[in-house]
Amino acid sequence: MKNFLDENFLLNSDTAINLYHNYAKDMPIFDYHNHLDAKQIYEDKQFDNITELWLGQDHYKWRVLRTNGIDEEYITGNRSNKEKFDAFAKTIPYTIGNPMYHWTHLELQRYFGITTVLNDENKDSIYEQCNEMLKKPEFSVRNLLLRMNVAAMCTTDDPKDDLKYHIALKEENFKIKVLPTFRPDNIIHIEKINFIPYIKDIKELGYDIKTIDDVKKYLSERLDFFYNAGCRVSDHGLDQVMYLSATDEQVNTILTKGLNNETLANDELRMYKGYVLSYLGTLYHSKDIVMQYHIGPMRNNSTRMFNQLGADAGFDSINDGSCAVDLSRLLDSMDVSNQLPKTVLYCLNPTDNAVLASMIGNFQGSGIVGKIQFGSGWWFMDTKKGMINQIGDLSSMGLLSRFIGMLTDSRSFLSFPRHEYFRRIVCEEIGNLVENGEYPNDQVMLKEIIEGICYNNVNSYINI
Amino acid sequence: MKNFLDENFLLNSDTAINLYHNYAKDMPIFDYHNHLDAKQIYEDKQFDNITELWLGQDHYKWRVLRTNGIDEEYITGNRSNKEKFDAFAKTIPYTIGNPMYHWTHLELQRYFGITTVLNDENKDSIYEQCNEMLKKPEFSVRNLLLRMNVAAMCTTDDPKDDLKYHIALKEENFKIKVLPTFRPDNIIHIEKINFIPYIKDIKELGYDIKTIDDVKKYLSERLDFFYNAGCRVSDHGLDQVMYLSATDEQVNTILTKGLNNETLANDELRMYKGYVLSYLGTLYHSKDIVMQYHIGPMRNNSTRMFNQLGADAGFDSINDGSCAVDLSRLLDSMDVSNQLPKTVLYCLNPTDNAVLASMIGNFQGSGIVGKIQFGSGWWFMDTKKGMINQIGDLSSMGLLSRFIGMLTDSRSFLSFPRHEYFRRIVCEEIGNLVENGEYPNDQVMLKEIIEGICYNNVNSYINI
Amino acid sequence: MKNFLDENFLLNSDTAINLYHNYAKDMPIFDYHNHLDAKQIYEDKQFDNITELWLGQDHYKWRVLRTNGIDEEYITGNRSNKEKFDAFAKTIPYTIGNPMYHWTHLELQRYFGITTVLNDENKDSIYEQCNEMLKKPEFSVRNLLLRMNVAAMCTTDDPKDDLKYHIALKEENFKIKVLPTFRPDNIIHIEKINFIPYIKDIKELGYDIKTIDDVKKYLSERLDFFYNAGCRVSDHGLDQVMYLSATDEQVNTILTKGLNNETLANDELRMYKGYVLSYLGTLYHSKDIVMQYHIGPMRNNSTRMFNQLGADAGFDSINDGSCAVDLSRLLDSMDVSNQLPKTVLYCLNPTDNAVLASMIGNFQGSGIVGKIQFGSGWWFMDTKKGMINQIGDLSSMGLLSRFIGMLTDSRSFLSFPRHEYFRRIVCEEIGNLVENGEYPNDQVMLKEIIEGICYNNVNSYINI
Repeated sequence: MKNFLDENFLLNSDTAINLYHNYAKDMPIFDYHNHLDAKQIYEDKQFDNITELWLGQDHYKWRVLRTNGIDEEYITGNRSNKEKFDAFAKTIPYTIGNPMYHWTHLELQRYFGITTVLNDENKDSIYEQCNEMLKKPEFSVRNLLLRMNVAAMCTTDDPKDDLKYHIALKEENFKIKVLPTFRPDNIIHIEKINFIPYIKDIKELGYDIKTIDDVKKYLSERLDFFYNAGCRVSDHGLDQVMYLSATDEQVNTILTKGLNNETLANDELRMYKGYVLSYLGTLYHSKDIVMQYHIGPMRNNSTRMFNQLGADAGFDSINDGSCAVDLSRLLDSMDVSNQLPKTVLYCLNPTDNAVLASMIGNFQGSGIVGKIQFGSGWWFMDTKKGMINQIGDLSSMGLLSRFIGMLTDSRSFLSFPRHEYFRRIVCEEIGNLVENGEYPNDQVMLKEIIEGICYNNVNSYINI
Repeated sequence: MKNFLDENFLLNSDTAINLYHNYAKDMPIFDYHNHLDAKQIYEDKQFDNITELWLGQDHYKWRVLRTNGIDEEYITGNRSNKEKFDAFAKTIPYTIGNPMYHWTHLELQRYFGITTVLNDENKDSIYEQCNEMLKKPEFSVRNLLLRMNVAAMCTTDDPKDDLKYHIALKEENFKIKVLPTFRPDNIIHIEKINFIPYIKDIKELGYDIKTIDDVKKYLSERLDFFYNAGCRVSDHGLDQVMYLSATDEQVNTILTKGLNNETLANDELRMYKGYVLSYLGTLYHSKDIVMQYHIGPMRNNSTRMFNQLGADAGFDSINDGSCAVDLSRLLDSMDVSNQLPKTVLYCLNPTDNAVLASMIGNFQGSGIVGKIQFGSGWWFMDTKKGMINQIGDLSSMGLLSRFIGMLTDSRSFLSFPRHEYFRRIVCEEIGNLVENGEYPNDQVMLKEIIEGICYNNVNSYINI
Repeated sequence: MKNFLDENFLLNSDTAINLYHNYAKDMPIFDYHNHLDAKQIYEDKQFDNITELWLGQDHYKWRVLRTNGIDEEYITGNRSNKEKFDAFAKTIPYTIGNPMYHWTHLELQRYFGITTVLNDENKDSIYEQCNEMLKKPEFSVRNLLLRMNVAAMCTTDDPKDDLKYHIALKEENFKIKVLPTFRPDNIIHIEKINFIPYIKDIKELGYDIKTIDDVKKYLSERLDFFYNAGCRVSDHGLDQVMYLSATDEQVNTILTKGLNNETLANDELRMYKGYVLSYLGTLYHSKDIVMQYHIGPMRNNSTRMFNQLGADAGFDSINDGSCAVDLSRLLDSMDVSNQLPKTVLYCLNPTDNAVLASMIGNFQGSGIVGKIQFGSGWWFMDTKKGMINQIGDLSSMGLLSRFIGMLTDSRSFLSFPRHEYFRRIVCEEIGNLVENGEYPNDQVMLKEIIEGICYNNVNSYINI
């Protein structure tokens, strides 16, 4: 029996152990999609309570607490930091088989050096120990990132953002590249309640949106601005993938309806969204900006809790439905004129793995290594099982060796050990291939492949 | 090489062996969903032929026989019990990798003490041996259940049922709780051929259905009656999940059309069914009755065989299609007023696992441990692979430790070893986590978790 | 650590090793679906360059090359055979975890006796070595097939084909049965650009298609012709499964629209296609011709590359969407009059595995062993993972022991080791069941089961 979470955690063969410790472990991190706050990095914020740092924004943890029957008072409510921490400590032993158990203890080990297992009995001492350490300078936000060997990271930003702190960090030449990501969801999702308020907001920036040309001008100019501030990655959250070929005239009519808050038919949504996404793709292509599609979230499922807490509070889940045809047509609309940018396709629903893993093969080429990527197991799939599945499906249908690897999608400065978690799984899976005689024990190639997946591939892929 | 089906069947590590034999094996059974007949229990029926007891109602077995090329004469036809048994014995060796092979031999071992492997050569002696034993008092229906340590079970009953035998068993204070389940499919599935005959049937009980208020009155009064007879669980078979918000007026119009046998549009079905299910949910909530949704069967696929044998004869299979959005809206329609009852969501199609395993997280809370459950691998997934998948998906996205565990969906008094089958798989999976250093070897927690999944969780969950 | 691709490749237990070497290895091959050219077999073509034989038609390889960033010039372009071979050799080490790595080295070993691993360093010598060997008589097309112990194979042919070379091979009494397959896609897919040209083509054969009766006459007469030339298998590529009950009159109206190149509504496609497929099924039934449905490809996704290279050039991928209801109705339309032929259902999308594995159980019977088959892991699923999944789903829900096994879908005379790949995986999976005590170590049954899946089942199933 292996000890819990020892140095060979998740590594069950000599080859896996060797691959991880010799090649994977010390590679830098390029976390190309997360939700961290550039302001907190710029100001080098020092958290003074483990509850705030650890449980303050992490809706993954909130869901687990609710499932365990913990009252909302102790999750997002008015209870004290200590009471909230206690509820979490009491819950953790029940998270057997859930990545929360591993993330929690990896974070306690890597950041705080605490190797005991969190539970109801030791919750007081661990709480105190952590809070004591948080006072030290090495627990400032910047130092937390540096300690994890982060070389670069991409936050998530709306086109209207002034990127003040990204620019400041760039000017300061901070050792870690903190790059903005262009995420224009608000102007793409014309049917959502955010659309009209958003149009009002950007009017204040001088963009009076009346026609599709206004939309294009806004996006194009803001992308220029983002590019100059270091942006090399864009991102799109697509609850459903939608595309239907449309003329400028059709799209203008739809836009007018949207601006008047009229209900749009499904095909109208497919035309408008498809048109804007396709236009954006050609912009990205011209600037060598990577395009990310995150496919399949279903958000704010509990109206009661949305009214109480707003969005991103742990009430989202996995959507289903077809995506193959519209996604194919959308990508083809850019590819047909050879203007498809580098593209990363992620799904929330593992059911879509095969569609995406085979879809990327349709649009590879132009002499770019791994131009179209099947993205890492992400939200709800950033689990051991989810990652093994994604790795297995990618390697079966594409080239695992050219994979750009892990992102944290993080909302906490403590979640970078998720890269370690991913790397251990990659080494275990590749180790198994070698151990079972399915790939030769060629250390030169294995080193190149492992280091590639951990860092080198993404570092070549994203043109920073 | 392990011996076939020895005491450590399906248990491949010391931890798994220990968990099963020390914690799982002797826990009572709470079989909260099956199709057994309360009358046969009340009357303590004694079967006198193994074919009738074993093959008489079990359409799982019938499908296997048909696949093996056995003529229908030997399955549901006029051949003798012995000839039917022979056809089954001849088929069994070909069921390698199918749970039928394991169920069959578990049942021979646990009930009859027969440890040889059934085949064409020993079919005569096993047939005689079984029939001989069936004469003994310990093979009466009640004794078969008691021998399996069944503490409680829930049958499946139509709201119009008089529950005569459930009430009699309750009054008699029979050691095993035999509880009715409220399953109002016939009045929900307005488009099916059973609807109008059903409306006629219940008119005889004094319910003249003309408006949606009549439907509500019928359901509410019958649920009161069921509750008094011990019902604490409801069940709904949903070929497709349907919900669309509707007014009373809209639903009345749809109901009138349905009563006149007019064809209903898909959105009309979504409105009527959604309305009734949502109403029922609030009733269940007020009485703390658990609500089960069984999602995704496609029934009576062979018209030819349906005409010959009727429903539930082994001609059903797995449906596909989206369920996420309508299921989310349906659950939200109850949750929005905080009237969502405890709910168990099952799918037939493993493709829906991720949707359900993440959906439950949207509606947890109110201080109830594991309020919304992703139900056990059921019909077509009550296989080793199906159960491992369900356990893996549940633990990845939710709390396996709070899982209410297995149900048999049984149509035979001999199928209770399916709980043993499930428990062995649970112990193997959790054993692997401990053996691989993914959870500490903490016997106090492991005992609590295993005993919880086997019995304690469901026993707390269902308020009997 | 096992050596790469040694004699026990993919066999990780003594039982698996024993099953493969004693039972599986020497069984003949019945490759009942591929795309080889009967003319090349008849003429016993001798390839003189490894690039042409190996890379000339294989779009699996082309996709891998594109993913690795190789320029199209070196794939389908004007570069020399040696340059193309070099690009492939350079790419191969990056195909870790992809079946391409295994296929490539199995083919080098089995046909050329080359046991070194292909890479950038040895590419010159391997190129020369292969080309040298290709000159020998044993590398003629017929000898390549004979060396692989092929007993029978089915090519893929359009109904209008004259089957000249099939007939010639039959008359010559060539040791390997080379049978045509009836694949009438062009007349079924009324909405595709091929339809009207196809109608023109067959007019030249004397079939002037105006009504559905003309279509039926054409299909019926051509099927007679195919039957006489040895055809015992039909095949249908279904991007989507479509069926909606229709009258002759409705179908005639739709056909007229199609012949006039009018756009057809989805339900019109469901009616026309369903009608023709159902009609064909009854023809197949009357002649005991096996019916194959290959479900779920999405073709020619890149318009740009389709314009450049045409179809089947490596730009196809996996479709999604529901298939259960229409497939059920389609099969039932034949079964209702007891005219459903033997049927094999394949999916490209592993998501459909459960639907198909349970669907077949609805229509088994008539005293035929394994009448309805869930077909082998095929296109994009002919991977280790895909095959393990298909085997697991089939055995969980049906009878693996009655499975008709592997097909190559091949476009290269070198791809027959894919049968070996499949057989090793089958032996490993069944070996695991025995090793783990899930099936007894009964060598008589195991021999029958393994030999059945490798060859005997398909040989009984297809009535040649």
